[in-house]
Amino acid sequence: MTKFKDFMATYQPQVNETLRAEVVTQAGPTAPQTWVAMLTYALLTPGKRLRPLLALAVIDSFGEEINPSALQTATALEWIHAYSLVHDDLPAMDNDTYRRGQLSVHALYGPASAVLVGDALQAGAFSLLATVPDLKADRQVAMVQTLATKAGARGMVLGQVLDMANHDTNEDQVALAAVLDQVYQKKTADLLQAAALLGGQYLGLAHTSIDLLGEYAGALGLLFQIKDDLDDYDQDAREGVVSLVHLVGLDQAQDLAQQLKDRAQAALDQLTQAEMNFDSELLTSLLAQIGA
Amino acid sequence: MTKFKDFMATYQPQVNETLRAEVVTQAGPTAPQTWVAMLTYALLTPGKRLRPLLALAVIDSFGEEINPSALQTATALEWIHAYSLVHDDLPAMDNDTYRRGQLSVHALYGPASAVLVGDALQAGAFSLLATVPDLKADRQVAMVQTLATKAGARGMVLGQVLDMANHDTNEDQVALAAVLDQVYQKKTADLLQAAALLGGQYLGLAHTSIDLLGEYAGALGLLFQIKDDLDDYDQDAREGVVSLVHLVGLDQAQDLAQQLKDRAQAALDQLTQAEMNFDSELLTSLLAQIGA
Repeated sequence: MTKFKDFMATYQPQVNETLRAEVVTQAGPTAPQTWVAMLTYALLTPGKRLRPLLALAVIDSFGEEINPSALQTATALEWIHAYSLVHDDLPAMDNDTYRRGQLSVHALYGPASAVLVGDALQAGAFSLLATVPDLKADRQVAMVQTLATKAGARGMVLGQVLDMANHDTNEDQVALAAVLDQVYQKKTADLLQAAALLGGQYLGLAHTSIDLLGEYAGALGLLFQIKDDLDDYDQDAREGVVSLVHLVGLDQAQDLAQQLKDRAQAALDQLTQAEMNFDSELLTSLLAQIGA
Repeated sequence: MTKFKDFMATYQPQVNETLRAEVVTQAGPTAPQTWVAMLTYALLTPGKRLRPLLALAVIDSFGEEINPSALQTATALEWIHAYSLVHDDLPAMDNDTYRRGQLSVHALYGPASAVLVGDALQAGAFSLLATVPDLKADRQVAMVQTLATKAGARGMVLGQVLDMANHDTNEDQVALAAVLDQVYQKKTADLLQAAALLGGQYLGLAHTSIDLLGEYAGALGLLFQIKDDLDDYDQDAREGVVSLVHLVGLDQAQDLAQQLKDRAQAALDQLTQAEMNFDSELLTSLLAQIGA
């Protein structure tokens, strides 16, 4: 139960340090300082760095070293996550002035800069994956494909589109629950899934094992979102926000959370059977932490 | 002089057809029809498809077949170009209601959808490059790296950032001319350069030859922008738009255009020396067309 917390305490600072250095290399030696400052502000927004840490946890679980190549692979996920937050906060989108207690990028630098910062962060993610040192090209290609798919027109961005559409809908509750399930899958679970898949692709695992990592992380991502809704249940009710938990009821949401935990654990158990070098302890501990 | 026009007439329809099919595969089988429609509208905006055609012209100039792999490589450039237009037109950016005579994406679908459409188009470009059929992984990685770099934080997006900053500046004309040179290079030339580089990387050419293609296309891109300014000279003067041509004067702009033509042609001549299979006719014809 504390194992992932320890792992986090060790690697979160390394992830942040890596992100900070990456901005400088991605923006290039002639970039204006204000531009570097904007990108850094957006990328180093306070946060848990859950996505890179999940990728690193997968790598660590197979006994591989967390070296600069592993860190660069993992941080690419944070570049995508950060871009999505910057664009989500835009006046044209959620119009949020604050993000984790500090001004959002558009509130500080203006909406035009926020659009461009987000665009640059997305490109940066793919640039990082294509330049991971000492990694075979076929693994890099697989990682680019996975991240582009999970973050793009059928993944995370589609989740946002469905979420927007769903705010204006008059559908019945059952249909709405189905939509929300899709939204959760795409908005949150897809990028967490990409994190686990990238870890497996970085290691060059067999497809069947990579699929099991995806199953684990997909369930973990949905669990993450439902736990979030359960935590915000009373607040959402006061503010009139309709979450999946409100639609299906508290009892069924608890059941669903348990099913997701079981599904994620089953994937880890299968992986333990399939992969001699795999130690499930760290990912089990993460599951317990998210599901707590 | 007519050779590139003929090439365009042959391949523009194939590029458009490829783009249309790619939206469907990228959005996936379960995507809402409205989402597919938005992406298609943005991607199929009327235009010359100059960037994909340049990549295809490079491939053709080395006697290689324009097959589905070549088309997929080339169209990735249009996904980036299209995303940049959608975001440029946003109310927070240039606030343009029309683009080539039809409603801009935000004007038709709203600014939130336009942000998301642009984001999905960018991801789609990298997804396409990572899935080009029958292409060696190291070539795919090189193409992803080039496109991400030329389109990102030190390339096209930085060009936009510099352009914005430059609208608010009080610098003297010489300093401004230097800035505009940077803006032109990054906003326009970088993506055209990426098109030629991707063509060379697709073919697996030697680095020295790829560099010559980059030199050709970099000069071509600047020429393209300066010719545009020369064409708009009177209109810009009436509307108070400050272009590089206004800053350096008409005569010097004509000189600069000639220098760029010479530089591009010199790169083609060197390439002819270096590469037995290279026929410079098509790219010379494109240069003449842009420089006319």
